[in-house]
Amino acid sequence: MVVDQLTINKKRLSKNLKELAKIGKLGETGVCRLALSEEYKLGIEQVKRWMEEAGLQTRVDHFGNLIGRLEGKDPDAPVHIIGSHIDSQPYGGRFDGSIGVLGGLEVVQTMQESGIQPDMPIEVISLCDEEGHRFGKGLFGVRGILGKLDNDELERSDKDGITRREALETFGSDPSRFYASEYAKDSIASYLEMHIEQGPILEASNAPVGIVTGISGPLWLTVELTGFAGHAGSVPMRLRNDALLGAAKIITALNDIVKQEEGAPTVGTVGNIEVFPNGRSVIPEKASFTIDLRDINKDRRDRYETQLRECIAKISKENGLQYEIKEDTNNEPRYCDKEITQIMHNESRNMGIDAPELMSGPFHDALIMADACDYGMVFVRCKKGISHNPMEFASDDDIAIGTELLLRTTLKMTNKNK
Amino acid sequence: MVVDQLTINKKRLSKNLKELAKIGKLGETGVCRLALSEEYKLGIEQVKRWMEEAGLQTRVDHFGNLIGRLEGKDPDAPVHIIGSHIDSQPYGGRFDGSIGVLGGLEVVQTMQESGIQPDMPIEVISLCDEEGHRFGKGLFGVRGILGKLDNDELERSDKDGITRREALETFGSDPSRFYASEYAKDSIASYLEMHIEQGPILEASNAPVGIVTGISGPLWLTVELTGFAGHAGSVPMRLRNDALLGAAKIITALNDIVKQEEGAPTVGTVGNIEVFPNGRSVIPEKASFTIDLRDINKDRRDRYETQLRECIAKISKENGLQYEIKEDTNNEPRYCDKEITQIMHNESRNMGIDAPELMSGPFHDALIMADACDYGMVFVRCKKGISHNPMEFASDDDIAIGTELLLRTTLKMTNKNK
Repeated sequence: MVVDQLTINKKRLSKNLKELAKIGKLGETGVCRLALSEEYKLGIEQVKRWMEEAGLQTRVDHFGNLIGRLEGKDPDAPVHIIGSHIDSQPYGGRFDGSIGVLGGLEVVQTMQESGIQPDMPIEVISLCDEEGHRFGKGLFGVRGILGKLDNDELERSDKDGITRREALETFGSDPSRFYASEYAKDSIASYLEMHIEQGPILEASNAPVGIVTGISGPLWLTVELTGFAGHAGSVPMRLRNDALLGAAKIITALNDIVKQEEGAPTVGTVGNIEVFPNGRSVIPEKASFTIDLRDINKDRRDRYETQLRECIAKISKENGLQYEIKEDTNNEPRYCDKEITQIMHNESRNMGIDAPELMSGPFHDALIMADACDYGMVFVRCKKGISHNPMEFASDDDIAIGTELLLRTTLKMTNKNK
Repeated sequence: MVVDQLTINKKRLSKNLKELAKIGKLGETGVCRLALSEEYKLGIEQVKRWMEEAGLQTRVDHFGNLIGRLEGKDPDAPVHIIGSHIDSQPYGGRFDGSIGVLGGLEVVQTMQESGIQPDMPIEVISLCDEEGHRFGKGLFGVRGILGKLDNDELERSDKDGITRREALETFGSDPSRFYASEYAKDSIASYLEMHIEQGPILEASNAPVGIVTGISGPLWLTVELTGFAGHAGSVPMRLRNDALLGAAKIITALNDIVKQEEGAPTVGTVGNIEVFPNGRSVIPEKASFTIDLRDINKDRRDRYETQLRECIAKISKENGLQYEIKEDTNNEPRYCDKEITQIMHNESRNMGIDAPELMSGPFHDALIMADACDYGMVFVRCKKGISHNPMEFASDDDIAIGTELLLRTTLKMTNKNK
């Protein structure tokens, strides 16, 4: 397909992406726009203005989500949602999430400009806190609108001690009115999301976009080890209860566990660690660290989790440590709707491109949305598979092709007679 | 010895210790009084008032040290110094350092009250930033007065980005006038320090105090590993350059290295680690951690350092990491003066107590002072050897006995005719 023959407005889309990347800009190419931060609020306000310019009805709900609505012929019909997120990692890139929100906006703006009214309403949603960095648990906004928040969710705090409740209130939301922002059962018809791949497969296949078949389920744990602080110069090695040493052994063990089956896509990561008192001449009393374990094969993931838990118990015992394991997130893998992926295959063929199928290791808002409706996802090729890093990159052309596929799929899904 | 027969004023000493512990109080029994902090300044002001009440001339120098001087018969004679520190670890105890400063003050106050004028001047010094927690390098004040600061010393910053220069200026010091606070060569006659043992030997020997024979030299390194950040869900294990995984393997390796010789007093500790970006779903790009390696046997310490450096190179290579090793502190072991320890033995026998000899694993201001003059140290028993921890404890009786020994040793050393 020649990029010049696109229906969507590539130039506008690229311009919007560049503008949004200025909010929370980090170095030359990065973004830090943490959920519910000041930069997040500025980002939401910017996208809201664009939505209004496109003629959408907008609202910011009590979960911190931004919703732009294009009315359908039947305003009461279940809604078709196109979503993603504009919150980022602390050391993140310009494309993760943002291309899905601005691509979705481009889809409905193109429809508006072409005078196409869909059968059902279409909502473009920028979902709040997909990343989960700030409060240690992500997919917040999408869980919110589906009534899937945990009881203690609002009391989770960030590294400065600010709770999610406080952050929501500062942002302008009212947690006591969450119920007013929830979607009623069966009120969502379908969900589409476009996202950068965050992996190396499309690049290796020389394909600008791919069609997602499913999302791996992540298991997120927090492990806290407690030993006993003491002077680094005087406590003999054999009398120590060093929490960081225990953590180091568990980090190494996790790495061995997930690499047992050669070629398997299992991944295990310790991305965050906090040590107390964290002084150079003090034996660490506490070490708290996260575990992120993902697999497309839930049985294997469960097996590795069991091994890991045994390992934590054994290492803690050998090093005289107390341990506590908290489960923060536990999602099962979710497969995309076959009818939707079929539409995507047909439309990509019509566009003259070969879009390979692939699974997603990273999770997305779609993982949760899968509980409420059928869903489909388009992946856009990203350079070297790099993501969660300022060096993250996807080309304007590839993003435009992905958005065109999103538009064509949406047109098929929202016009029964077509 | 019956504690009631002490020359020093045990009640006053205990009261002062309790008062000082209120400044920077942490929980019920802990103290956080970081060098040059607001709490540190309040502590210095309090001790200064007590010094003045005891009739000493006081000054606060440009290194942040507090000096209280009792004039000698010959005011120009080299000075006898009794010193220690009142800065603490962030999660520290009430006794580490403080008993040496307040014990020293009690010694000269007792002399004053008894009308004893020493041959040479005696200075009680509260030396600034022995601990080294805040700026990653300790023994600051004592190195300052001896002209032993490094070139980049003032540009070291704490976790909030405040440099030592800024902290000194906020405290009221003027780094451009350091020269005015240095001690001239040969102007120091001798140095005494009393400190809690911070180890379990005196408790095991059922001895209230001990006589130190020498101090182990610490080697302080900072290791920085650099890998590449990436999405925890999508980058296959074999393509990762995980800096925290590398750090975990080095932490484990250090532990194995220092435990090679069974029964040897070698200790190795990683007390502090910082990870970047430290997000739960991001593969760590950087891990920076400290190494604290100590041994009474310098040859063995050097051998272990070589092994450790080889290990860091090997693990970095295997995990695709760049590494950098910075040497922050490298001190040789220093032995106490035999004549001074002999006086201490004689005096403790006169007091009717059996004070065993022991080496010090932790370093003290005395380690640096050893370059300028002969030195001696008294250790006070501490409960379970716990230190650098709010549970640190030494009894009023044991501290009083240590102070009495400090007084009697000082009297012998500062009166040539006695």
